[in-house]
Amino acid sequence: MEDHIVFNADIPALDLLDQRLLPLEERRFVCRTSQDACTAIKTMVVRGAPAIGVSAAFACALAAHEAEGRKDWESFLEQALAEIAQARPTAVNLSWAVEKMQGIWQKAAREGELTPATLFRLFTEKALAMQAEDIASCRAIGQASLELVRPNDCILTHCNAGALATAGYGTALGVVRAAWEAGRNITVIADETRPLLQGARLTAWELHRDGIPVTLACDDSCACLMSRGMVNLVVVGADRIAANGDTANKIGTMGVAIMARHFNIPFYVAAPVSTIDASLASGDLIPIEQRAREEVTCINGRDIAPQGVNAFNFAFDVTPNNLITAIITDRGLLYPPYTDSIGRLFVA
Amino acid sequence: MEDHIVFNADIPALDLLDQRLLPLEERRFVCRTSQDACTAIKTMVVRGAPAIGVSAAFACALAAHEAEGRKDWESFLEQALAEIAQARPTAVNLSWAVEKMQGIWQKAAREGELTPATLFRLFTEKALAMQAEDIASCRAIGQASLELVRPNDCILTHCNAGALATAGYGTALGVVRAAWEAGRNITVIADETRPLLQGARLTAWELHRDGIPVTLACDDSCACLMSRGMVNLVVVGADRIAANGDTANKIGTMGVAIMARHFNIPFYVAAPVSTIDASLASGDLIPIEQRAREEVTCINGRDIAPQGVNAFNFAFDVTPNNLITAIITDRGLLYPPYTDSIGRLFVA
Repeated sequence: MEDHIVFNADIPALDLLDQRLLPLEERRFVCRTSQDACTAIKTMVVRGAPAIGVSAAFACALAAHEAEGRKDWESFLEQALAEIAQARPTAVNLSWAVEKMQGIWQKAAREGELTPATLFRLFTEKALAMQAEDIASCRAIGQASLELVRPNDCILTHCNAGALATAGYGTALGVVRAAWEAGRNITVIADETRPLLQGARLTAWELHRDGIPVTLACDDSCACLMSRGMVNLVVVGADRIAANGDTANKIGTMGVAIMARHFNIPFYVAAPVSTIDASLASGDLIPIEQRAREEVTCINGRDIAPQGVNAFNFAFDVTPNNLITAIITDRGLLYPPYTDSIGRLFVA
Repeated sequence: MEDHIVFNADIPALDLLDQRLLPLEERRFVCRTSQDACTAIKTMVVRGAPAIGVSAAFACALAAHEAEGRKDWESFLEQALAEIAQARPTAVNLSWAVEKMQGIWQKAAREGELTPATLFRLFTEKALAMQAEDIASCRAIGQASLELVRPNDCILTHCNAGALATAGYGTALGVVRAAWEAGRNITVIADETRPLLQGARLTAWELHRDGIPVTLACDDSCACLMSRGMVNLVVVGADRIAANGDTANKIGTMGVAIMARHFNIPFYVAAPVSTIDASLASGDLIPIEQRAREEVTCINGRDIAPQGVNAFNFAFDVTPNNLITAIITDRGLLYPPYTDSIGRLFVA
């Protein structure tokens, strides 16, 4: 499952597994332009903070390729990069990826005459490196988490922070995979995660393919399962973590955290350090995307609610730091107070 | 919306609005036999504790009609009543309704020669009275709740405890309707309530029809909405309340109660006294129905999860009494400690 984001530099094209159609259909969505890639990110062909970060990096390479032959190539590319960074608002990884490319561009410009072709090569190399680093980060997260998972634990997760949400292996599911590979004999409960059902469609699919025992549960059964002693720990991913540890993640995460606290169950966030936005003092400052009503009122093209009834569709919520037992990163475990433990990472 | 359960004694037939098809289609499901009525209850053509109680009462009348002309009519009818009582396990109203009929049968038997035709008449009269009483109960619940609802409050509810879940008017939605009729200018957030989406399909439909402002929300957005100050109080129905106030209700209710407590939002249960099972000391003793995996993995006939992945499907959970601010009954408000306040009702 490390081939869901494939970049072919010869064409060039960004070839994505269309996650909207899983698990019923495995179809590819091929982006020839940075605009195609923005569409793929906006419509959630590809989703998950690290995965859209890597996709955005490749989108920058596509934009450099499109810039070739243009007189105004610099302003064109600047504009294209700005659009990529803004394709979705909540995950910090988009702007993080674009800023890396802007840094490369500035550095190369300082060093001499520049062409779009050179930038295409540099952006492509960087994006491929970021893809490889993301997989390594996920594996490091998995290793760091091993001390938190006991044999036969049942791990509840919300949404999909798996191979499909990253370049491969996963963050929350990296924790699951590392425990499984270490012979811990764990089982997983996947919250289905309305409205877009990433838990049912993606997490269940990934883990089932890997032979890791997974059982699906509606989001509203979480408290019931916890009250019956069926959940030993919770692990979720993150779209953006503020300097104080407040964590934006898929809508529903905060509720799971509140219930975990109520039942005294450890609640972990698994994310690479690149997901931390140390420029934001707290989660209140994280922009929260609101998406279309129809994602809630319509499933598989069929209405489930009466015409004319409105629906809330906040795509993310912010779990306050005091509900998070630890943050599992590619640079080890972070414990409260997070302002300190996160602060040390960024000073070093 | 008081015509979703109609009994025609001349045929006889129990004519139900098929709630499985709402809001897309308004089709009737006609039960000619008590077996048909059991099927309607099991498959959730009709659902909601008070509504299945009333339907069960009419099913008893159908059974008495079927018993006519049978030599073994008494054992036939006994068996039919036992089946009706067991159609679903969690709501106490099924056995409550059947016990009422058994009481009538015993009383009539003591008073002289009995025929199924006489019992059919007696059962029909009683069922019609129960139907009228249930509507009156709902209105009494609404009146009792008025002191709890302020102008412009936003009321969050889970599942459907509305006209469709009762003989009419509703329990939780009786609270909403009474506040609306009293000019309180309230608004409602309807949790969609997976897996069967009673909030999206039924609560939104009922309230929208009545012109009461309702907005739909996925179950997992509850904490997010509460954290933003968008919810002033929660009101839910009940399938069975134990003597200590522990309340079985649709899966997800306990989670909403935990989140309401976390955010210091009042959490009310609205139910007629007939929903209290004073024979059970605590909620641990309430049987919890588990339903088919497919209700979770399949929506509108289409799979949303991979083949071969199992799913939990507890149909109810039990909210512990310490999370319930008050119970709103047709005999007034009950406050903690519930063992006392409920106890007084049953001593009197």
